[in-house]
Amino acid sequence: MSRRGRFITLEGGEGAGKSTLLAGLRGHLESRGVDLLLTREPGGTALGEAVRAIVLDPARHDLCAESELLLMFASRAQLVRETIEPALAAGRWVLCDRYVDASYAYQGGGRGQPAARIAAIEQWACAGLVSDLTLLLDLPVSTGRARAAGRGAADRIEVEADGFFERVRAAYRARAAAEPQRFRVIDASQPAEAVLRDAVAATAHLFGADA
Amino acid sequence: MSRRGRFITLEGGEGAGKSTLLAGLRGHLESRGVDLLLTREPGGTALGEAVRAIVLDPARHDLCAESELLLMFASRAQLVRETIEPALAAGRWVLCDRYVDASYAYQGGGRGQPAARIAAIEQWACAGLVSDLTLLLDLPVSTGRARAAGRGAADRIEVEADGFFERVRAAYRARAAAEPQRFRVIDASQPAEAVLRDAVAATAHLFGADA
Repeated sequence: MSRRGRFITLEGGEGAGKSTLLAGLRGHLESRGVDLLLTREPGGTALGEAVRAIVLDPARHDLCAESELLLMFASRAQLVRETIEPALAAGRWVLCDRYVDASYAYQGGGRGQPAARIAAIEQWACAGLVSDLTLLLDLPVSTGRARAAGRGAADRIEVEADGFFERVRAAYRARAAAEPQRFRVIDASQPAEAVLRDAVAATAHLFGADA
Repeated sequence: MSRRGRFITLEGGEGAGKSTLLAGLRGHLESRGVDLLLTREPGGTALGEAVRAIVLDPARHDLCAESELLLMFASRAQLVRETIEPALAAGRWVLCDRYVDASYAYQGGGRGQPAARIAAIEQWACAGLVSDLTLLLDLPVSTGRARAAGRGAADRIEVEADGFFERVRAAYRARAAAEPQRFRVIDASQPAEAVLRDAVAATAHLFGADA
């Protein structure tokens, strides 16, 4: 019987360096012998990837905020049940590129969906699954957008105006402040090596005897 | 400035004759001069049709009940805002093949999602839109399934066992009993002409001076 794994989520806005950190953190965790599953939101399952294609399609500029919220949770409910929970139960660790905090930031802060509405869905859609650690890559919106600008075609969310991303950032920071035990805020304006060093330090306690 | 249109929804299980009635009722309403918009759930918008493809795909046998519920409301929230409300506001009538009662019947009765959960989503996802008239085509499950059996490949919901459809029927009938002003239950075991006659009679009051 294996010990339950650890669930780490990674959050942050555009150009925060999530992809770079995911790769670095994966390397670190695997070097410590962790059997790691890397997944993402929206996506991570056949259903989730179908939802991702809908939600990020720039042609769907008229997608209403309510549908966007419901689609994100449809992807998440399936991901939790089909992928994350079975992996954790089998003793694997899961590193997920975005999770429920992203809905509070993007659909809540960004699109104005009430936090109580999001919390009500979270209560049953996520089957009680909360991350053991959430790394928030935080940096000024202008810095992140300048970094992301060179990447090619923007998706439906990336084309939003600065005000949208300021609200996203504010919502993320508010959640981190409200749950300091679960969140670690990392200064994403640092060089990538420093970001990885901070993230590695933040995961150290997960290897404790109580893990 | 045009008078607001009327919103009629059609509900019923497999083999109840919804398609036949939709065509007949459309003919009747248009013959009375109604500017009618025919639409359906899940579907009716580009988003909704993408969701429909996901939800009815027999290959997605592992779609969890929570995701199914969220997807149905994602389709519905967009349909209400993009299609139904603008049409009603412009004075058109809307005849919709399934609406929110179907979630109480299929995701609620059929899949066991709590009615309170469905009602909580309905409250904000449907923007307050309730049908003026809901026609429930009711018939014994065995009769309906025998009729539907000759139709070719079954979708992901049609392949469910009889017990599922008995629960769907019971949930539909309970909703009709609870809201007799809005519902008209039609005996769908009758010949198609009799079903249409009953439906036509049920719509008569919608043409009243208060319409």
